[in-house]
Amino acid sequence: MQKVEHIGIAVKNLEASKKLFESLLNTFCYKVESVESEMVSTAFFKVGDTKIELLETTNPEGAVGKFIEKRGEGLHHIAYEVADIHAEIKRLKAAGFVFTRQEPFRGADNKMVIFLHPKSTNGVLIELCQEIVGG
Amino acid sequence: MQKVEHIGIAVKNLEASKKLFESLLNTFCYKVESVESEMVSTAFFKVGDTKIELLETTNPEGAVGKFIEKRGEGLHHIAYEVADIHAEIKRLKAAGFVFTRQEPFRGADNKMVIFLHPKSTNGVLIELCQEIVGG
Repeated sequence: MQKVEHIGIAVKNLEASKKLFESLLNTFCYKVESVESEMVSTAFFKVGDTKIELLETTNPEGAVGKFIEKRGEGLHHIAYEVADIHAEIKRLKAAGFVFTRQEPFRGADNKMVIFLHPKSTNGVLIELCQEIVGG
Repeated sequence: MQKVEHIGIAVKNLEASKKLFESLLNTFCYKVESVESEMVSTAFFKVGDTKIELLETTNPEGAVGKFIEKRGEGLHHIAYEVADIHAEIKRLKAAGFVFTRQEPFRGADNKMVIFLHPKSTNGVLIELCQEIVGG
């Protein structure tokens, strides 16, 4: 674990929330990106060294859609940047942590990502991410 | 807003969660502190430049106790470090944001703090904090 790369926030309306967070954080959204594999549209902000990723579902059956239906809008996940995602998965599995998928996959922002299941992490959805070199 | 100073996580059992996060983050808890004004016991971790603050309520009627009763354990708040908390409150009030108290107060970790009400911030509890100089 190297640093908190971003914090994910589930929102119902990306366009409205983008304006709200621009006002709140006093900075402009610098990127909007759709991630088909995750069924989300995202908007990114940066304050200091940490990004905020707003997530709007593109499908009610997607993970973010289900999250909002169950818990409403709000904090969704913390993403930690790691130097070697495979080594970190191995370390965490050996320590008893459970992942939502068995292998890392391509996420937003040119990264390979994987999520720890909240049932093994005190109800907190934790993402590990590693930049794709040359990606 | 200068940076994400910490991320707050509501837990039921601080001692058990402290061990879990030590294993998860691969680092030791460096400080445990009780904050009477907030009715919480806290444990701090640091990865990169961002802290994790675990929060266990010391009173079911406290904000963290009520949060867990309603939503269970999990992500509780994001704290942004600010250079001038009074100037930032003024800016945000002018932009229409609502605070849970009218004035900053002494929080954990030698800081003056104030919280934005989640109803004005997409369901996300946001803390502003400023280090107490000489505190």
